[in-house]
Amino acid sequence: MRRINCIISYDGTNFSGYQVQPGKRTVQDEIEKALTKVHKGQSIRVHASGRTDTGVHAKVQSLHFETEFQLSTESWKKALNALLPNDIYVNAIKEVPSDFHARYDVIEKEYRYYIINGPEKDVFKRNYSYYFPYKLDLIAMEEACRYFQGTHDFTSFSSAKSTAKGSKVRHLYEVSFSKKENELEFILRGNGFLYNMVRIIIGALLDVGQGKLTPQDIKFLLEKKDRRFVGVTAPPQGLHLWNVKYKQE
Amino acid sequence: MRRINCIISYDGTNFSGYQVQPGKRTVQDEIEKALTKVHKGQSIRVHASGRTDTGVHAKVQSLHFETEFQLSTESWKKALNALLPNDIYVNAIKEVPSDFHARYDVIEKEYRYYIINGPEKDVFKRNYSYYFPYKLDLIAMEEACRYFQGTHDFTSFSSAKSTAKGSKVRHLYEVSFSKKENELEFILRGNGFLYNMVRIIIGALLDVGQGKLTPQDIKFLLEKKDRRFVGVTAPPQGLHLWNVKYKQE
Repeated sequence: MRRINCIISYDGTNFSGYQVQPGKRTVQDEIEKALTKVHKGQSIRVHASGRTDTGVHAKVQSLHFETEFQLSTESWKKALNALLPNDIYVNAIKEVPSDFHARYDVIEKEYRYYIINGPEKDVFKRNYSYYFPYKLDLIAMEEACRYFQGTHDFTSFSSAKSTAKGSKVRHLYEVSFSKKENELEFILRGNGFLYNMVRIIIGALLDVGQGKLTPQDIKFLLEKKDRRFVGVTAPPQGLHLWNVKYKQE
Repeated sequence: MRRINCIISYDGTNFSGYQVQPGKRTVQDEIEKALTKVHKGQSIRVHASGRTDTGVHAKVQSLHFETEFQLSTESWKKALNALLPNDIYVNAIKEVPSDFHARYDVIEKEYRYYIINGPEKDVFKRNYSYYFPYKLDLIAMEEACRYFQGTHDFTSFSSAKSTAKGSKVRHLYEVSFSKKENELEFILRGNGFLYNMVRIIIGALLDVGQGKLTPQDIKFLLEKKDRRFVGVTAPPQGLHLWNVKYKQE
C-alpha cells in the first residue's frame, strides 16, 4: 500500500462543510467519490487535517488516503482534477511514509478571517467575508489580540457542542490583523484549534471593537473556562483555512 | 415625475445576463420587481447604460427610472437594498434632470477582463476570471493592444449576431493590461462598445500571445470589417463592467 498526501483548496459556499453527512453535498464526499471512480468502484476513505463547517473555505486543506494503484503523483493530480467539481482543486500530491497522518501529524495550522468594515457591501465578497458596517476601535482590538497569544485553556472560546475529549489547552503563535481599505484580515496561527474556536475569538474581538468588552476582559474570559460568558460566534463565510504544517516540512 | 439614477453592482454568476428574458433570472427583472414592490404593484421600467451577458459582472452599472414617489435618495437606497437579492447591491442613488438617459448620455465606458495565466487553477476566482494556462508572449500582446486604441470600425470585433444598426465606428481611449502574480488585468476604455466587442478583442489578444496572430494582423483584421476572420470570443466570467461616465460628471 502507498500512502498519498493531497493538498487541496475549496470554495465552501456550496458545501455543507467538509465532513461526510448523509444526503448532503460535502467536500469529503466529493473526494471519496472521485477516488472510488479512479479505483473502479472500490471505496476509499480519506483523512483530512480537520473538518470545516458549512460555508467555510480552504485555501490549503491537507488529507491522506491509501492506495494500491501505481499512478505517478502527476497522474493522480490530473485524474482527480478531471473528476472533481470545479469548486474543489487539487494543488499538489505527494507520496508520504506509511505512518504519516494528515490529522495527527499537524504541528501548525493557520486560519484567516475577513471582515468588510465600511458603509458599502461588496457583492463579490459576500461569500468570502463578513460584512460588519459598525465602527470598530482597532487599537483596543489589537490589545485584545495579544491576550489570545500564547498557551491557554480555550474552553470559553470553543463550542459548547464540542464532543472533543482531552485537553482544551492550545498554543496560539499569532493572533493579529491588518486593515487594507475597508477589509480587515485576521491571521490566527496555532498548534491546534478547538471546534468554532476561530469564529468565537473573532466574535469576541468584534465585541472589544464595539466597546462591549475591554481588552482585559479576554484574560478574565479565558480564566472562566465557560463558553456561556462569551458572545456570538462570527459567521462562517469569513473563515478560510489558510495553511497546514507538518513536522517534516 | 422625478427621474432617478441608480449606480449598482452585481455578481453575474447566477444571472442569465442583465436584460429581461421570459422565465430567466435577470438583473433587470430583479430590479424592476423591487421597484414594483416599492410602488405597491405599479410596474416600473428601468433603463441601463447597456446590457451584460450571462455570467458577466458589473462593479458599476448605471440605470434610471421615473417615479412619482417622494422618497429621499437615502430612503430609496435602503428600500431597494432591503428588497434586492444579495448578488445585487445599490451603491448610490441620485435625482437627475428629466432629460438624463442612462444609455444615450454615456460618454465613456470602462471594462476590465481578468485571466489567470499560470499552472494552477484558483477555485475562488473560477467565476470571476478566465483560466488560461498556456504560455503567452506579453510583449507581442502589448504591441497588439496599441492597434486597437483610437478610432476604428470594429465590425470584425463584434458579434455577427448583433442587431445594432448604424455606425460600428468606436473610439477606444485605452486598451492595456498588467500582470500581477498569475493574474492578467485588461483595461478597455472607450466611447462605446459593440455586442461582444471586449470578449472578441480579448480572444484576439490571446491569439497574438500564442503566436497564432502577429500584432500587425490586428490592423489587417480591423480593415477587413468581417467577424469571420477573427477567432473565438473569450468566455463571459472574466468580464467586468467597471465604470460608466456621463457628460455632467
